[in-house]
Amino acid sequence: MTELQKQIKSALEKVRDISPLVHHITNYVTVNDCANVTLAIGASPIMADDIGEARDIAAISSSLVLNIGTLNAKTVESMLAAGKAANKAGVPVVLDPVGAGASALRNETVKRLLGEVKMTLIRGNVSEISYLAGISSSVRGVDAAEGDIQKDKKQLAAAVANQYHCTVAITGAVDAVSDGVRFALISNGTPSLSRVTGTGCMATSLCGAFCGTGVDPYIGATGALCAMGIAGELADEAGPMGTSSFRAGVIDALSLLTGEALAKRSKIDEE
Amino acid sequence: MTELQKQIKSALEKVRDISPLVHHITNYVTVNDCANVTLAIGASPIMADDIGEARDIAAISSSLVLNIGTLNAKTVESMLAAGKAANKAGVPVVLDPVGAGASALRNETVKRLLGEVKMTLIRGNVSEISYLAGISSSVRGVDAAEGDIQKDKKQLAAAVANQYHCTVAITGAVDAVSDGVRFALISNGTPSLSRVTGTGCMATSLCGAFCGTGVDPYIGATGALCAMGIAGELADEAGPMGTSSFRAGVIDALSLLTGEALAKRSKIDEE
Amino acid sequence: MTELQKQIKSALEKVRDISPLVHHITNYVTVNDCANVTLAIGASPIMADDIGEARDIAAISSSLVLNIGTLNAKTVESMLAAGKAANKAGVPVVLDPVGAGASALRNETVKRLLGEVKMTLIRGNVSEISYLAGISSSVRGVDAAEGDIQKDKKQLAAAVANQYHCTVAITGAVDAVSDGVRFALISNGTPSLSRVTGTGCMATSLCGAFCGTGVDPYIGATGALCAMGIAGELADEAGPMGTSSFRAGVIDALSLLTGEALAKRSKIDEE
Repeated sequence: MTELQKQIKSALEKVRDISPLVHHITNYVTVNDCANVTLAIGASPIMADDIGEARDIAAISSSLVLNIGTLNAKTVESMLAAGKAANKAGVPVVLDPVGAGASALRNETVKRLLGEVKMTLIRGNVSEISYLAGISSSVRGVDAAEGDIQKDKKQLAAAVANQYHCTVAITGAVDAVSDGVRFALISNGTPSLSRVTGTGCMATSLCGAFCGTGVDPYIGATGALCAMGIAGELADEAGPMGTSSFRAGVIDALSLLTGEALAKRSKIDEE
Repeated sequence: MTELQKQIKSALEKVRDISPLVHHITNYVTVNDCANVTLAIGASPIMADDIGEARDIAAISSSLVLNIGTLNAKTVESMLAAGKAANKAGVPVVLDPVGAGASALRNETVKRLLGEVKMTLIRGNVSEISYLAGISSSVRGVDAAEGDIQKDKKQLAAAVANQYHCTVAITGAVDAVSDGVRFALISNGTPSLSRVTGTGCMATSLCGAFCGTGVDPYIGATGALCAMGIAGELADEAGPMGTSSFRAGVIDALSLLTGEALAKRSKIDEE
Repeated sequence: MTELQKQIKSALEKVRDISPLVHHITNYVTVNDCANVTLAIGASPIMADDIGEARDIAAISSSLVLNIGTLNAKTVESMLAAGKAANKAGVPVVLDPVGAGASALRNETVKRLLGEVKMTLIRGNVSEISYLAGISSSVRGVDAAEGDIQKDKKQLAAAVANQYHCTVAITGAVDAVSDGVRFALISNGTPSLSRVTGTGCMATSLCGAFCGTGVDPYIGATGALCAMGIAGELADEAGPMGTSSFRAGVIDALSLLTGEALAKRSKIDEE
């Protein structure tokens, strides 16, 4: 077991031990799955997006997850208010810039969020993170565009991490995590994960759960993405099945995953 | 079979017989589960929260469920409008004060709802019901706080029932139901229910389904909470499993539950 | 294999081949299921309802699905804007008039949508489509009213198709599809589908996926409704089960359905 594997083992054990409260302002498509994976991994979800309480809840939470999947004018204001309250209270903030690059509204929102809130961790696919880097990107909807996948993930993750002074996680067939100095490639996972809606959002919620323990976000993101990938592998190992059974299998596997299994099955290359 | 067991058997059979229309104004996290358990138990869900139709739908429904899980300024007005229309039309109203005590917005909302709408039944965890009683409560997010669990549930349920002239159901490891005069403790259930999001909301929807038959709400709440607990037990009996499979098992069990099985497996202590 | 069976086989194969982007403005009750069935059938879902991006997303999508299940004032404006943008860009538009006839708000909304947006396909139950035809209908909530089911579906589908110059699909125990000239009756399906929330919405999303290939909407609707019905039959064939397992079985079956199986199991009467 490498040092990083020991650290993600310990991080998962801490999630289960202290059950961090993970405040989500997120989209209505995958919100139930996000709540259920947060519980499955051992944390406690709270979804509160009204401007009248977003600050209060953020300030008492262990971490804040901002997911722009079904963006609307009202929740953007709540995200900004909650993000600032979290910053003030020292609560880690995780951003999922869903579909960044796909519409002017999303682009402006991401710009405002990154301008006004200090992020701890940003998790997106390669199209979204490329957009953040200012790299021209061929975005089509909310899924990663084919052409983007070949880009140098290491360089990209590190550049965006340095640009926004945070940790960056790029998910895909292989995931990449960087804090600008350290860099990890994670090769857990299965193509089946892309046939279920919300696996990106769920990965972000897991990042929120791990970061809610106060762990170094580079370790937190690595642990969360290994957990998601391994859960996909475990679900796949039950044999050929439809996509709904696979989805249930992923959440089941997360709920049964031990720190030991997380570390032992993780496939991490650090450079 | 006690008298109360016979009554909950008969109530479930009536749900399946008349399929009451249960109008929900509820949160977007667990709304799909609420719709599915409403169908599973034999009732018919309708979710309509726009102020432009909330009154109309409430007035033609068999019961109205108000759940403040993901509260926002607009739906509060719809809840008030629908609640008053339901009161006027003699439609039972069930309140789930999710997270009452956790933010000023929730507290004010609960106060307005209880001030302007006559509730038939309030279902919450011990923290939420304690908040309603004016008892100081250590609320953390939307789950029940540990310290609250030891409080005297009987006294609490009866006090809140008398305060708001309605039936009160407090769910937890042991559930308590009181209408201020009668008191029942229900010891069905399993800890697994707390590892799935929305089991509280689902219990409230079941209360809406039972109360939609026109049954005495004390009987309705007792039947609904026994049904939820027994469904959890039945799901657990299939052996160790992950949380997603457990959730599916709960809804499956509700859909297959007979009045006979409900009565026979119910563990009710009346005092 | 009839000509129409060959055409629906080919249509499904095209969905899986080109993975059309299906823009949904839909309700928050069943949105996750809609996204998952869109993926299961081989298309790519995007849910975007803010007025600030509804036009942009509609214009770059392969089809647009408008579902008024949980109608609110804001999304109505987004539906109109997206619908017009889709019309302009030649993107097919599928309307699901959920609960039309059940409230004044729904009736006015449907009127505006049909007045301002050219629909490609309308899918509803017999109560909803009867409402569109101006036939007096006994609507109770969002489910089809018993009395309506005996009406002559052929005449109704053709009349509404001619009235709005589009294809019309009426779902129920037997589904009917008409473009005003051609008429198909589909007798796939199972009563279990009515015990799960959102099967109507899911059928509409499948219509969006099929129509997103650019196929003749009469063929697209027929393929989509056969797929939904057959998926229900396949789920049922696994033996008696609860409603949650049945729902998972439906989505599983959709994800595993081949064009060959779709055509061979389809029960279509053309007149």
